[in-house]
Amino acid sequence: MQAQVPNIDDIIAASHRIEAVVHKTPLLTCQTISQRLNAEIFFKCENFQKAGAFKSRGACNTVFSLSEEQITHGVATHSSGNHAQALARAAKLRKTSAYIVMPENAPQVKINAVKGYGGQITFCKPTLEAREATINKIIVQTGAIEVHPYNDYRIIAGQATAAMEIFNEVEDIDIIMAPVGGGGLLSGTALSTKYLSPKTRIIAGEPDLANDAFRSFYEGKFIPSVNPKTIADGLLTSLGTLTYPIIKKHVDEIVTVSEEGIIEAMRLIWERMKIIVEPSSAVPLGCILEGKINPEKKRIAIILSGGNVDLDHLPWLKK
Amino acid sequence: MQAQVPNIDDIIAASHRIEAVVHKTPLLTCQTISQRLNAEIFFKCENFQKAGAFKSRGACNTVFSLSEEQITHGVATHSSGNHAQALARAAKLRKTSAYIVMPENAPQVKINAVKGYGGQITFCKPTLEAREATINKIIVQTGAIEVHPYNDYRIIAGQATAAMEIFNEVEDIDIIMAPVGGGGLLSGTALSTKYLSPKTRIIAGEPDLANDAFRSFYEGKFIPSVNPKTIADGLLTSLGTLTYPIIKKHVDEIVTVSEEGIIEAMRLIWERMKIIVEPSSAVPLGCILEGKINPEKKRIAIILSGGNVDLDHLPWLKK
Repeated sequence: MQAQVPNIDDIIAASHRIEAVVHKTPLLTCQTISQRLNAEIFFKCENFQKAGAFKSRGACNTVFSLSEEQITHGVATHSSGNHAQALARAAKLRKTSAYIVMPENAPQVKINAVKGYGGQITFCKPTLEAREATINKIIVQTGAIEVHPYNDYRIIAGQATAAMEIFNEVEDIDIIMAPVGGGGLLSGTALSTKYLSPKTRIIAGEPDLANDAFRSFYEGKFIPSVNPKTIADGLLTSLGTLTYPIIKKHVDEIVTVSEEGIIEAMRLIWERMKIIVEPSSAVPLGCILEGKINPEKKRIAIILSGGNVDLDHLPWLKK
Repeated sequence: MQAQVPNIDDIIAASHRIEAVVHKTPLLTCQTISQRLNAEIFFKCENFQKAGAFKSRGACNTVFSLSEEQITHGVATHSSGNHAQALARAAKLRKTSAYIVMPENAPQVKINAVKGYGGQITFCKPTLEAREATINKIIVQTGAIEVHPYNDYRIIAGQATAAMEIFNEVEDIDIIMAPVGGGGLLSGTALSTKYLSPKTRIIAGEPDLANDAFRSFYEGKFIPSVNPKTIADGLLTSLGTLTYPIIKKHVDEIVTVSEEGIIEAMRLIWERMKIIVEPSSAVPLGCILEGKINPEKKRIAIILSGGNVDLDHLPWLKK
């Protein structure tokens, strides 16, 4: 396993390693949203990414880094959704097995998607302890290699390629924003930004109701996420031992948003951009809409992390 | 008013006239859908068009064809939605008024959008008679010029630019498909296809429950739409005296789809392409899914007509 924080060469190598198996996603603008905020907003559309989220970047970088011998017995992970789909797809591309441990309350649409990519699912109780016990058992039984959703430098280097593509496409970005859950996307984004556009401010968005990264960042010590209850179901996890130090060192700011703000931003993106994003994707824009950062006259890149939504359960129809 | 069926020069002129005020929309593919149908499907994303539908093409071509003198007292139309938004926007761009007659049961999201573009709405009963009486009164009172949603050669030439963009981007299209309501998009599509890609088959999709174009086409006489009850709310109207002859002459086939088929196709596009399309847009794909045409090994271009959906009332949540 890669033992050091990814440098620019690692990220470039990742981008070459995955270019045949992931999309170079479009960077879209929306006149209505930019005008409303008196800013120039660029949306990096990872909702259009293979398997529906940026997670395909890290999963493919990791799986395609493994040797034929290493991959023989498959790969395994525990994930609430998007990483699971991405890993199942990457494993399928390398013609090996993917063993996926999922909480029994995972959305049906995500379960179906993992099955669609040929992933072999084992359900467990929705606690970190149950997940870790279950995956350890599977690894012992199968000999599969664990691919953690975010606490892995190969994953971080893969996720970093999204921001790299942004900086290769547009210049003079004042602020780059990503949502933060486990911190894989955020730490990768921070690294690419430091290497390629060091004047750009790096700001993370997090739900008020899952603000462990916010608290860890400002209190200067790791604080785990305890039973978070946000609709941004991609952001429920705690930071990792590898992601937290990168975030602490390179991220400029973490801001948070209410559940209502997430829903408003998500609906705004759906209605005005005519694209489907999941709640986690809407978190950074929600932070701006709630006035947590001042967007005026700024060029802001926002990573829309994914588009995997259960269309039978939309948040504005829950009441 | 243009008195003859648009020729290729008229369509090229329309494309130049509108290029600064409408989007050249992307042509997207979806591996999952293409593989499932064993075909190569290209989706022309008019759901990303200005004001959310192809209607902006025809409305802008018409409004920007008018002289300063003609435009003085504004423009007027009756429309259930997308044409109304498109015309209101076009009028705003030319700094004149748009008087919009809408049925009192029009979706709130479409009413809000027309208001957002500064359109002045007059509501009437949802019958053709009430609409025509109301708009005639407005025209007498204001001196506005009526811009019909489809039965106008300038509108048809504008809508024809969508197919022109397809043929400028990809070659060897075996089949081009568009939904048919009043026939503005379909007749424009047919003309561009005949001029630019005469070997391409032109196939229209229509809801089973609003199959007046299908019947008119195969029975060889104009049959009006009588109280249609489809969720494809852009396709409720009858063909026009200008659109019907073009369709009769140039279209190769009209096929129909059930309501369930429309919903299935719409949901497939949402889930797999992560883009928002309205039910009318899903009609051609629905026809293919229901086996009404054989897509195998064909290169098929489908025009996704629009993306204006009331997100509070999605068809798969209606039960």
